[in-house]
Amino acid sequence: MPQVDTARFLKDLHELRQIGAYRTGVHRPTYSAEDMESRRWLMDRMAECGLEPMMDGIGNVIGRHPGPGPKLLVGSHIESQNQAGWLDGALGVVAGVALARAGLPVDVAAWADEEGHYGGFIGSRSFIGELPEEEIDRLANRYHGKTLREALREAGLEGLPRIQLEPGRHKGFLELHIEQGTQLESAGLRVGVVTGIVAIWQWKLVIEGMQDHAGGTTMAERRDAGLTAVRLLAMLDARMPFACGPRSTWTCGRISLEPGAASIIPGRAEVLFQFRDVDQAMLDRMEACLRACVQESNRRERCTTTLEAMSLSKPALCDDAIQAALAAAAEELAPGAWRHMPSGAGHDAQYLAKRMPAAMLFSPSIGGISHHWAEDTKDEDLALCVEVLAAGAARCLGANA
Amino acid sequence: MPQVDTARFLKDLHELRQIGAYRTGVHRPTYSAEDMESRRWLMDRMAECGLEPMMDGIGNVIGRHPGPGPKLLVGSHIESQNQAGWLDGALGVVAGVALARAGLPVDVAAWADEEGHYGGFIGSRSFIGELPEEEIDRLANRYHGKTLREALREAGLEGLPRIQLEPGRHKGFLELHIEQGTQLESAGLRVGVVTGIVAIWQWKLVIEGMQDHAGGTTMAERRDAGLTAVRLLAMLDARMPFACGPRSTWTCGRISLEPGAASIIPGRAEVLFQFRDVDQAMLDRMEACLRACVQESNRRERCTTTLEAMSLSKPALCDDAIQAALAAAAEELAPGAWRHMPSGAGHDAQYLAKRMPAAMLFSPSIGGISHHWAEDTKDEDLALCVEVLAAGAARCLGANA
Repeated sequence: MPQVDTARFLKDLHELRQIGAYRTGVHRPTYSAEDMESRRWLMDRMAECGLEPMMDGIGNVIGRHPGPGPKLLVGSHIESQNQAGWLDGALGVVAGVALARAGLPVDVAAWADEEGHYGGFIGSRSFIGELPEEEIDRLANRYHGKTLREALREAGLEGLPRIQLEPGRHKGFLELHIEQGTQLESAGLRVGVVTGIVAIWQWKLVIEGMQDHAGGTTMAERRDAGLTAVRLLAMLDARMPFACGPRSTWTCGRISLEPGAASIIPGRAEVLFQFRDVDQAMLDRMEACLRACVQESNRRERCTTTLEAMSLSKPALCDDAIQAALAAAAEELAPGAWRHMPSGAGHDAQYLAKRMPAAMLFSPSIGGISHHWAEDTKDEDLALCVEVLAAGAARCLGANA
Repeated sequence: MPQVDTARFLKDLHELRQIGAYRTGVHRPTYSAEDMESRRWLMDRMAECGLEPMMDGIGNVIGRHPGPGPKLLVGSHIESQNQAGWLDGALGVVAGVALARAGLPVDVAAWADEEGHYGGFIGSRSFIGELPEEEIDRLANRYHGKTLREALREAGLEGLPRIQLEPGRHKGFLELHIEQGTQLESAGLRVGVVTGIVAIWQWKLVIEGMQDHAGGTTMAERRDAGLTAVRLLAMLDARMPFACGPRSTWTCGRISLEPGAASIIPGRAEVLFQFRDVDQAMLDRMEACLRACVQESNRRERCTTTLEAMSLSKPALCDDAIQAALAAAAEELAPGAWRHMPSGAGHDAQYLAKRMPAAMLFSPSIGGISHHWAEDTKDEDLALCVEVLAAGAARCLGANA
């Protein structure tokens, strides 16, 4: 079993935490000065443990293991959401460095912009060959609008080659990440072996009514788009539980009424509605439920609702063999203190899984807090998880070395 | 019966329509160059028909009848909502001029900022002594933030006296206004005699939940403020019809979820909810229903809702004697083509009604459109309404001259 220097691992994590520190978290938006500093810091750590570091034309930092033989690819992302947590992404990258320090034959990667400041997952998508130049031309920062091309130029990445996956080089991809939920914590568990990454089916509902004066227009005369939106969402609240599976989630994150004034009957409403599951059959059932509710709303209401699919991703199932290796390692190092669980959030692993066996390990999130500077995990849980990751990696490599 | 020159009345209306013309409507925000031009235009019309015009320190334009004896006060507002209709307000002001031209002993008024660019009804409130200097110090433009003091300075009104109501001078106040609804049109009627102006009870509901990741957080763990808002609004949709009266209206004009992102469970929701009626008892019943729904929501839900009253105005009932005079005039000039009806919108008359007998007359609104440049009314209906107003005014004056 590989000996991981967990003290050094934690030291590295806390050192990285200082770059772009914000309260107890970090602010390292993609390609910002802080983000680029963290990538250079990472290249130094990689070099220290014998990897050959390189930053490519999209900002991916990859440390190649110089030796021969089968290798695993280990990593995550290093940029953060705005004013967000210190572990989201960074944990999986520094864990890769820890495995390399422990002498395991791993390449370590920090994928660019998993958090979607510009596009979302553009680093891992570039690596597997799913980020065409035309998309790079098109993308811009969602907060301040700077184009991706301009950001790459300012970051000194313009014109650098984009590293592509070498078919056959890796036996698989491993990503350690915080859970971003409370399932481990509330069950008193310390490690999660991920079964798969949910698909996110994101929809936009647009409801067309008639804008009118809230005093002059009788209830009978109204075509209130906001009221139709409320009735439709209440119908979904009543019906979705009977269409979904035990681990499905669905969320309405935004309701906007136009014009949005106290004394004006909304003439138009826009609703963002999404659901997630790892099981394709469940996704299909939830879509059928959503479509039936919209159809029924259009039958009952005086305002018309149109349904637009914004994105329909595919579930990414984790590789059975790697899962088994991680599960065995978890049972060995934390008997009874781990569980299998799906990932409700998207991760770089879902793109790597398109080209190689991939799997993920979750550490607990204190209070389930994430995408917030207060995000945290106990040091002892972080240490345990990196040891499980290393032992699982050793099993994979040993199994068919 | 007074002879109103309806051709001249329509000519005046169409002339005023050219000031700040926007498509088929007008854009005359309070104290803008266009608004001030329209006020000076009005002073010229007043002078033409023998009134003594004056503009005061809040922008009210008042034309005093020089003769002795009992007088009526007739008017409305002359500024418009942004890019809005040509008749909303202007109709009642120009009608006052038409009555003066017809030789009726009337003072004519154009009250400032009924439309609330700065405060709402500040002209009529100033005239009845309900606009303290401290409020003028505090008010600012709701769209661009300029202070009321600065706007008054730029409009050349700074330091001018504010004309106050002369107790005993007026037997009553008359306001002709467009309906801003479709009740007259859909009933094929041409004149509305207003029974009262509804009270508007405006509420803000704030729902506190827990912001969380839409993937990492199971349905069981969530405290979704948006979902609680939807359930509460659906409950109100189900219950309010049994609490309200035949002419009550209630409206949710805004729902804002925070942070309002597709993949984040809303941690906070804000809802604007209002109801209106002319009947105090109905208002009390609707408030009781609202409070019961909030209480039940707080019993059922994991998110807490707090209810805040933003404004609770009083219904303004129209004077019975003036109503009777207007009704008799309507029946005489438009037999069977008029009705009694409440005003669902607020009007300057509701403030004048605090100091003198007041009443209103409604003209039909084509398609019920208002607060939009497409607002319109047929010329023949406008002409009929000003004749009914004049005949009604004559009856009032005659009755106890």
